[in-house]
Amino acid sequence: MNTERKEPTYLCTDGQVADKSEIARRFLETRTRLNDNVDKADNYLVKRFYNIDHNTYLEGAIPAKYKELMGLVVSAGLRCDDCINYHIIQSFRLGVTRPEQEEALNVALVVGGSIVIPHLRRAYELLKELYE
Amino acid sequence: MNTERKEPTYLCTDGQVADKSEIARRFLETRTRLNDNVDKADNYLVKRFYNIDHNTYLEGAIPAKYKELMGLVVSAGLRCDDCINYHIIQSFRLGVTRPEQEEALNVALVVGGSIVIPHLRRAYELLKELYE
Amino acid sequence: MNTERKEPTYLCTDGQVADKSEIARRFLETRTRLNDNVDKADNYLVKRFYNIDHNTYLEGAIPAKYKELMGLVVSAGLRCDDCINYHIIQSFRLGVTRPEQEEALNVALVVGGSIVIPHLRRAYELLKELYE
Amino acid sequence: MNTERKEPTYLCTDGQVADKSEIARRFLETRTRLNDNVDKADNYLVKRFYNIDHNTYLEGAIPAKYKELMGLVVSAGLRCDDCINYHIIQSFRLGVTRPEQEEALNVALVVGGSIVIPHLRRAYELLKELYE
Amino acid sequence: MNTERKEPTYLCTDGQVADKSEIARRFLETRTRLNDNVDKADNYLVKRFYNIDHNTYLEGAIPAKYKELMGLVVSAGLRCDDCINYHIIQSFRLGVTRPEQEEALNVALVVGGSIVIPHLRRAYELLKELYE
Amino acid sequence: MNTERKEPTYLCTDGQVADKSEIARRFLETRTRLNDNVDKADNYLVKRFYNIDHNTYLEGAIPAKYKELMGLVVSAGLRCDDCINYHIIQSFRLGVTRPEQEEALNVALVVGGSIVIPHLRRAYELLKELYE
Repeated sequence: MNTERKEPTYLCTDGQVADKSEIARRFLETRTRLNDNVDKADNYLVKRFYNIDHNTYLEGAIPAKYKELMGLVVSAGLRCDDCINYHIIQSFRLGVTRPEQEEALNVALVVGGSIVIPHLRRAYELLKELYE
Repeated sequence: MNTERKEPTYLCTDGQVADKSEIARRFLETRTRLNDNVDKADNYLVKRFYNIDHNTYLEGAIPAKYKELMGLVVSAGLRCDDCINYHIIQSFRLGVTRPEQEEALNVALVVGGSIVIPHLRRAYELLKELYE
Repeated sequence: MNTERKEPTYLCTDGQVADKSEIARRFLETRTRLNDNVDKADNYLVKRFYNIDHNTYLEGAIPAKYKELMGLVVSAGLRCDDCINYHIIQSFRLGVTRPEQEEALNVALVVGGSIVIPHLRRAYELLKELYE
Repeated sequence: MNTERKEPTYLCTDGQVADKSEIARRFLETRTRLNDNVDKADNYLVKRFYNIDHNTYLEGAIPAKYKELMGLVVSAGLRCDDCINYHIIQSFRLGVTRPEQEEALNVALVVGGSIVIPHLRRAYELLKELYE
Repeated sequence: MNTERKEPTYLCTDGQVADKSEIARRFLETRTRLNDNVDKADNYLVKRFYNIDHNTYLEGAIPAKYKELMGLVVSAGLRCDDCINYHIIQSFRLGVTRPEQEEALNVALVVGGSIVIPHLRRAYELLKELYE
Repeated sequence: MNTERKEPTYLCTDGQVADKSEIARRFLETRTRLNDNVDKADNYLVKRFYNIDHNTYLEGAIPAKYKELMGLVVSAGLRCDDCINYHIIQSFRLGVTRPEQEEALNVALVVGGSIVIPHLRRAYELLKELYE
């Protein structure tokens, strides 16, 4: 069972996010540099995995913004700072509000427990830079 | 930063879910029986934790149905069959469609990897009973 | 830095635990049967690992009963039902009270989050059989 | 950087494995039944993920039998009984010996710790049925 | 079943710990700065979660020092450096000796496996600064 | 069931690896410094665990190079950067080629999902320094 997928409409670019937040800027720069290196390796299965990954968050039966927030929740539940930063930034670019980001993080906190708190603290620092 | 929270409106009861699906019925019966035993123990911190847990999924800045789906994604990413069953049932009761359930499970599959597949298979069996 | 280790004094045998609790009886029987099969394989590294494992929970700087409860907390935090059953039974055999077992489980619940709840429910069923 | 991939040569069929081992037979039957249900759902991203998953274990720079054993190690380290069963069976079909299976499980035991032991016990029961 | 809870008696302050250990000082400063930012956000569910978290480690049926060590074991088993630092410091403040800290870490090492070793190494660096 | 174990033959030393790769050099220096501190503590169970850990990766029924790659796969699946670095370096020292390293990482990526990607990116940076 499949719904048509299409690219979401971002309200701002990575560059504009980087201008608002130093944490985001450093994260995006490192990510780009390391991804360029992965791209050069040109590994067939890695490229296919990245492609599926991209397709997972498109507009579909569930709006893209909620899928990015789902990515945030599971990333926080699995405790991956890079993944948390990425999905907070993507959600921000899709117009997600700060209360929505916080509610998504609450799901991760309650499901994942206090072990999530150090990641929550760092996530709130990024939220502050993006939304204040 | 907090949005007003309120109880979501369920489109059907646990009993009606149990009538549609044998998997759901067995899950809900066992869950009720074991929770009754936990309730009898009357542990203060457990009760407070259950209370926070309940509050996490109320209507708020994010609609309850998407929070239940977020619970589903993180439960599948963390590979907990009971939690997956619970959030699929809650989402169903809030009117979530099957394509929405599948898209949420896709986020969990891509984030969590093939180790999620055995749980995905069991989740699809429950989806079949609920939606067909 | 090492403290002298010695075997703890159990207040009852596995058999007596099995007489009190059907859950414990089934768990111990399956565990014994499967361990006998592992023993027959006589794998050198497995035997050495089992030996370290045994030594970890002896009386030492920390009393054995608290080490068993630590084993319970980390087992519940890592969500392993067999391990939870094992450490609840060992703790019971060392005279740990039910409030102590519940407080240990609370640490696991708060650190590990709601994903621990299905295991908590099953643990409380075992506690009921052992302590009532 | 990519090496040509090709299908590995299996020394026996799933059916022959099922004839040797009751545990394998039950596992394979349930897996087939549940996978048929997933196939019927015909979810585009699930199908693509299954396809990548299949391609990961082909003959390549690393012989298929060692990739199956790698799948076994990470499955045991992540504590997924279904995945452990699957990779033990696939390894067996590729001619992996019992000492090789045990050494792979030892890597998982040492990396993953005693929390792996309940899965190791069940894995050894399957090894016994397949190799004795 | 609940035992009266009360605040534990600390033998020294965070400031005194920071004076003994540079690792502790940096950890406590960052934690305070990030927690202040979380506090300002004033999220209702986060505050309630923090409150439960605080209550979990009070004196009760189990002495506070053993509960902090339980927090250490599950934090090391779940591999969270910030949480490990926090519980080592709290245990130190409650008079836990170095052999007790090491025995607790041994439970985490054996249950969690060699994947815990990088965290164990960093924990021992903190232990050295606190106890030597 | 046990096969004779013996030390593998390394094609180069840690020092030679450090000369090729700055990432490897920093990792190995920190690891040595922290391990020296652990060694000084002279904890009996830690020493025994380290000893088992060493024995797990010796030549045996499975060649040492494939066991190091298994260690890499489970380390990446469990998302431990230090462990990933360690096993990439050990595999390199045993003559493992870059395509073999990439195929092993692919198993971890597919089993562990996109949450592995940040670790994969960092692993590819180390691969670049070692193999280019």
